[in-house]
Amino acid sequence: MGTRYNLIAGDSVERLAALSDGLFAVAMTLLVLDLKLPAREGIATDGALLAALSALAPRVLVYLMSFLTLGIFWVGQQTQLSHFARCNRHVTWIHLLFLFAVSLMPFSTSLMAEFITLRAALLLYWLDILLLGALLAASWRYAMRARLVEPEVAASISRSVEQRIYIAQALYAFGAALCFVSTWWSIGFIILVQMIYVVGPRRGILSRI
Amino acid sequence: MGTRYNLIAGDSVERLAALSDGLFAVAMTLLVLDLKLPAREGIATDGALLAALSALAPRVLVYLMSFLTLGIFWVGQQTQLSHFARCNRHVTWIHLLFLFAVSLMPFSTSLMAEFITLRAALLLYWLDILLLGALLAASWRYAMRARLVEPEVAASISRSVEQRIYIAQALYAFGAALCFVSTWWSIGFIILVQMIYVVGPRRGILSRI
Amino acid sequence: MGTRYNLIAGDSVERLAALSDGLFAVAMTLLVLDLKLPAREGIATDGALLAALSALAPRVLVYLMSFLTLGIFWVGQQTQLSHFARCNRHVTWIHLLFLFAVSLMPFSTSLMAEFITLRAALLLYWLDILLLGALLAASWRYAMRARLVEPEVAASISRSVEQRIYIAQALYAFGAALCFVSTWWSIGFIILVQMIYVVGPRRGILSRI
Amino acid sequence: MGTRYNLIAGDSVERLAALSDGLFAVAMTLLVLDLKLPAREGIATDGALLAALSALAPRVLVYLMSFLTLGIFWVGQQTQLSHFARCNRHVTWIHLLFLFAVSLMPFSTSLMAEFITLRAALLLYWLDILLLGALLAASWRYAMRARLVEPEVAASISRSVEQRIYIAQALYAFGAALCFVSTWWSIGFIILVQMIYVVGPRRGILSRI
Repeated sequence: MGTRYNLIAGDSVERLAALSDGLFAVAMTLLVLDLKLPAREGIATDGALLAALSALAPRVLVYLMSFLTLGIFWVGQQTQLSHFARCNRHVTWIHLLFLFAVSLMPFSTSLMAEFITLRAALLLYWLDILLLGALLAASWRYAMRARLVEPEVAASISRSVEQRIYIAQALYAFGAALCFVSTWWSIGFIILVQMIYVVGPRRGILSRI
Repeated sequence: MGTRYNLIAGDSVERLAALSDGLFAVAMTLLVLDLKLPAREGIATDGALLAALSALAPRVLVYLMSFLTLGIFWVGQQTQLSHFARCNRHVTWIHLLFLFAVSLMPFSTSLMAEFITLRAALLLYWLDILLLGALLAASWRYAMRARLVEPEVAASISRSVEQRIYIAQALYAFGAALCFVSTWWSIGFIILVQMIYVVGPRRGILSRI
Repeated sequence: MGTRYNLIAGDSVERLAALSDGLFAVAMTLLVLDLKLPAREGIATDGALLAALSALAPRVLVYLMSFLTLGIFWVGQQTQLSHFARCNRHVTWIHLLFLFAVSLMPFSTSLMAEFITLRAALLLYWLDILLLGALLAASWRYAMRARLVEPEVAASISRSVEQRIYIAQALYAFGAALCFVSTWWSIGFIILVQMIYVVGPRRGILSRI
Repeated sequence: MGTRYNLIAGDSVERLAALSDGLFAVAMTLLVLDLKLPAREGIATDGALLAALSALAPRVLVYLMSFLTLGIFWVGQQTQLSHFARCNRHVTWIHLLFLFAVSLMPFSTSLMAEFITLRAALLLYWLDILLLGALLAASWRYAMRARLVEPEVAASISRSVEQRIYIAQALYAFGAALCFVSTWWSIGFIILVQMIYVVGPRRGILSRI
């Protein structure tokens, strides 16, 4: 009798990484399609153009925030995959669902940009982030259990990988909760948190989040 | 005299995989473009927004189904390519036609989402799935005949690769046939089958499909 | 003094291949965006939907033709790159211009689909194919001169690579010229030629084109 | 205690390159979506079609210019990455911000094409180029300081990599400043500079820019 299909399927870390890079690249670029050009009619001077563009500012802010979100999760996923010694169909599917949440990001972003003062739009956006975090956490826990990571590597980094996800999600949840004050507070707080992740301070309390 | 062109063309498994990853990534992300934002006019409260979004629910269902379809066929193609010891122009073209069927998926999906109660839309969607399955089966049979897979590997996995395709196609065909009861039955059944493929149960009868 | 910039730029065959795979993947998938869904109004039965879809048939034909065109040139470029022992900035730029012509393909295709009976649309489409062929030929000639291909490899395949391009371009030019009879003759002839390239007959006169 | 997360994140040059290739590929292909087909109504002859298309000429020019811009920066980034012996989270984030500027390019391009006579549009386009250059320079300086490039390699090429960026940015700035004469002069000058970079003359004064 032959080998069961499920034992040989989805075993390539490289192809999972390549699909992920492609999907992140498309999602990141589609975000900007949400930036619509101002209509040419009635715009004849530099001043009129700049005035029309300044009306796009909230969208640019939301767009930048989503680009950072995708960047942070791309780095997070890469960090996991680069420590996988091998791959199997189960972890592949966790990552495919993770990519599903990535592909929803341009929609979540447009929704929030269009309804920027509505709590429902912000909370749906946060749900997308929560889904991304939950799937990354699930991927790591599964990888530990199924020994997809070499044991000595796992021992030294496993805690920091999980902690990073939980702390980040706690901060995102707090940011989302701020929408009950104002959605602008939420957006401001989330961008602040993301800036810290982008800069990655090397010392002090912020280096530990 | 020089080597004939056809003998040296299309011999890179890596580039075929890279093109495939790119095309799947774009197709998966384009699916979501079908989710149109509700119009801003007349939506001023969280409740109104959620009501407008709930009208999108059937589209989200169809979109999720297509994402799973593409995921399943991506895993299936990856499983084949990762067992190819080499590649040639014939098998490359079978996969290019496979990618053609992949690129049709966003259109098939939009069509079904827009005309979700019409049997013709569901059957065209199924034809796309049938084409994907037929081309994967053709790729494997050709690869066996042309010895693109190492003989000892081929012996141990060939039957399970083929069986997986035929069983899946039989289930899809049954699901499609359910549209003569109702297209909703078809969609429900197909999503159920896909969930089983996603979860990949390790024991019991379901582990054998 | 340091090394001149131009001597160290653009030296990665792998990244050129990856950019090309990405660009081809996007272009191939964008083609299908030209297939617009029929409007939902007035379509309530399977028959009405099939009738509305059959009006899309000429577009599907043009779309298939362009997918084959892109597939053929993707195989052609891959065949060249996989024989390059190294890369430099000059050949990289020839390929970037080649990718420019690839990125024009969705536009050329839409133009021809929209104005399918006008010779001007067909000839612009052919100009795009001519540009693709001319740049591939330029790439090979430059690679020979700059010894980017190992000499022993070059000796055995150089003639067949060049011949393939010239014969294909002669056939495309003949096909384009048929538009002075009718643009449909052109399209039919070009698809016929492409089918031969897809099938790649192993013997007889057709195996030599 | 485990390894801190920031020490293990973002360490793959390969994945950064793959994400970049994907994002450049999408951005390059999206540029062309700005080329809108002429409306079918009222166009019944070859002459009418060519007349309608000739009205697109300024857009094609802008589009070609942006394709060259992206090509030049893609080569520039590739040249840096191919000399990195390793990668870390800081340099990864510099490149993610670089990719953000890349993803803005289709928007900047559309804006300039739509408002081609307005200085504000041209200067915003130039700001995007400036951002791309500044981030590439930052990436190189950081890589030198953090010893991501092998010391002996760094010694021989570091000056030419930096000089190339500064000279190019000086030329772009001069081109942008020409918009105070006319935006057409700016566009003409920038395309001229880009052509020199594409051709990459091997001797004379132009080989040094």
